[in-house]
Amino acid sequence: MKIGIIGLGLMGGSMGLALKKVEQIQNKHITRIIGYDKNPLHSQQALNLGLVDECVELKEIWQCDVVFLCVPVDGIISLMADLKEGELNPKTTLIDVGGAKVKILQSLPQWLRIHFVGAHPMCGTEFFGPKAAFGELYENAIVILTDLEQSGAYQAELAKDIFIALGMKILKMDSKSHDKHIALISHMPHIISYALANATLAQENPQTILALVGGGFRSMSRISKSSPLMWKDVFKQNKHNVLEAMAHFQAEFDKARVLLENDDFDGLESFMANANTLQKFL
Amino acid sequence: MKIGIIGLGLMGGSMGLALKKVEQIQNKHITRIIGYDKNPLHSQQALNLGLVDECVELKEIWQCDVVFLCVPVDGIISLMADLKEGELNPKTTLIDVGGAKVKILQSLPQWLRIHFVGAHPMCGTEFFGPKAAFGELYENAIVILTDLEQSGAYQAELAKDIFIALGMKILKMDSKSHDKHIALISHMPHIISYALANATLAQENPQTILALVGGGFRSMSRISKSSPLMWKDVFKQNKHNVLEAMAHFQAEFDKARVLLENDDFDGLESFMANANTLQKFL
Repeated sequence: MKIGIIGLGLMGGSMGLALKKVEQIQNKHITRIIGYDKNPLHSQQALNLGLVDECVELKEIWQCDVVFLCVPVDGIISLMADLKEGELNPKTTLIDVGGAKVKILQSLPQWLRIHFVGAHPMCGTEFFGPKAAFGELYENAIVILTDLEQSGAYQAELAKDIFIALGMKILKMDSKSHDKHIALISHMPHIISYALANATLAQENPQTILALVGGGFRSMSRISKSSPLMWKDVFKQNKHNVLEAMAHFQAEFDKARVLLENDDFDGLESFMANANTLQKFL
Repeated sequence: MKIGIIGLGLMGGSMGLALKKVEQIQNKHITRIIGYDKNPLHSQQALNLGLVDECVELKEIWQCDVVFLCVPVDGIISLMADLKEGELNPKTTLIDVGGAKVKILQSLPQWLRIHFVGAHPMCGTEFFGPKAAFGELYENAIVILTDLEQSGAYQAELAKDIFIALGMKILKMDSKSHDKHIALISHMPHIISYALANATLAQENPQTILALVGGGFRSMSRISKSSPLMWKDVFKQNKHNVLEAMAHFQAEFDKARVLLENDDFDGLESFMANANTLQKFL
């Protein structure tokens, strides 16, 4: 089994490293892991770091048994739009790992749909690029497979077997629900973190921040390190849901502000005690 | 040297454990660490966990060489208001660890001021109560000493020696600057985290949250576990600065929302790239 990876950053590079540790999939050994990144520096870094066995041209990738699409969401859409039916091996399974799913799946040419499995691995870090890759990223994480009934049965089964071989847990969900829930639980919190970082940078000099920083601010600003290029696409693809999620947050933030303005400190205590309940199950 | 600790939760309990590891302060051994907590259950837990050597009545605490005040900010203010001049050993140094400083220091009776050192150790966790205490909490953390010129020279020197013995780094700051900067870097981010937790709880069921949670949401919601009782007081004491910090965050959050609404994804990318610069020094 030959596996191709397009995009050799955190997600793709880690996929390469993780696949190297997989003994076999459906009784077949992985004979080769080949990669492609449109940035030549990333290709070279990926080779030096041993993330893939070889870097090749895109047309060679399309001949693999499985291809992981590990580029930002817009990149996935344009790769699929440009791909011609004759260029893809008819037995190839395409798996994307994009963080917003509806627009990707809606944009697929009809002939391509059965080849394609829409996946969202619920893992990541704030770092990006080939140097951020590590072989344990996917272990024990959940992967959400969206609109799986529209993928071919063979492709769906193969994708599931690969994710299980990587030590992941599978959850099926329709893409609309995925995009709505993930906007609140992942996408919008990134906007908060970026906004917090910017507010602090606008008001404080670096010395003051360093002097006063504690674990709280470190936690809250950590994901403001994340890739602007990747997140730009996610916000673009999931704009409507993200705006809605921002409104939900805004309503609670306003509640806190009004309680504070009105000196309603008991109300504020209840507000915080309610938030504490999240931790009963998380 | 006998040390008293009032309030045996995360901060006070950890102080007891940390002081046990200190060899000597100003060439004197610590002979006894005694504690007081108005909650009898906490006193018992503190004893069982070995956080202090003994739990005593408040009047005995006031005879110690050093007393750490590790209760919420309002508690510190009322303890100091109730304390009568004859009750305190004239050689006692009082050190508080409250997270907002102006109101505490302004509220002190004149006779008490030289005894008192206003400190804010820049460390903590989202857990609270005696069971949250651990002996390494203060190690390598910064402690901010506020309006130190108003403390007696002897008391200031002793407090510094203790914090250095605990492995901490000292930063002096006036209390007004402290409260203003800390509102932005610590207090306000807690409100964001509480609001995010509440927004998520209002919109999602626990199963969905658990299925979709990744490292980002975990980071962003971590400090929403923090003590409502403690934070209520901090927000009360530092209301004006916290509201101002909330407005600074709101301005940036609004910027992101407008960029998204207007499909200005390049603008959004710049917004995120600016946030990334925080990480150059943090």
